[in-house]
Amino acid sequence: MTQSQETGRRLDHVAVAVKSIEESRHLFELISGEVCSTPETLSEQGVRVAFVGRLELVEPLDMNSGTARFLQRHGQGLHHVAYQTDDLDGDLVELKARGLELIDETPRNGASGHRVAFLSPSSTNGVLIELVERPA
Amino acid sequence: MTQSQETGRRLDHVAVAVKSIEESRHLFELISGEVCSTPETLSEQGVRVAFVGRLELVEPLDMNSGTARFLQRHGQGLHHVAYQTDDLDGDLVELKARGLELIDETPRNGASGHRVAFLSPSSTNGVLIELVERPA
Repeated sequence: MTQSQETGRRLDHVAVAVKSIEESRHLFELISGEVCSTPETLSEQGVRVAFVGRLELVEPLDMNSGTARFLQRHGQGLHHVAYQTDDLDGDLVELKARGLELIDETPRNGASGHRVAFLSPSSTNGVLIELVERPA
Repeated sequence: MTQSQETGRRLDHVAVAVKSIEESRHLFELISGEVCSTPETLSEQGVRVAFVGRLELVEPLDMNSGTARFLQRHGQGLHHVAYQTDDLDGDLVELKARGLELIDETPRNGASGHRVAFLSPSSTNGVLIELVERPA
């Protein structure tokens, strides 16, 4: 996966909203041939997540979480796409200045302790986009 | 992006359904820092496609195409995820035998002349999955 020379951002992972990681993991293990990681709880977001290769499974723990509302509206399916960055704070300033709407004005804690922030789908053609700060 | 040792499949790209490649390309160029490729028409699927890095923009040409129906139902947004494979015919036999429902029993022509086939979201947790045969 190539890294943009201009922005330093590159595709990190794709996330799928699921009712149950335990019920879904075998399907995505079969398709990808990867082994599902040990699920991790993200209390701040009201979800559990696990990775099958570059595919993240997101399961709601809390009926008020965004993922629970997504499942109620859409059912299981593709939820968001994440880009990796070396400079999350800088990106948020830049993208806001370019007219994109931020869900997170300041980063929150994501999987594996990484700092993350989401952009609003209302300004990104209906695509929920996460930025993940991860050392290169 | 790691390649599974077991299946030889790996994440290839993520696709977004858009009303217009021309209207959407700047947004995804901004986010990814990549330059959008020259759009390509896939007559068989009734769409035009272009790639911004690993993100594929899919625009319907035909009001009866699957992408047009997706836009009518869901609006713009994440559409499918694609895995790259070295053996598409073998994968279709294997995945069908494992209980997955195929949209394409035999491969069709995809972008860049690659052979592709889609799995039905009804058997993959609501996720439309494309397999793309591409030389390693």
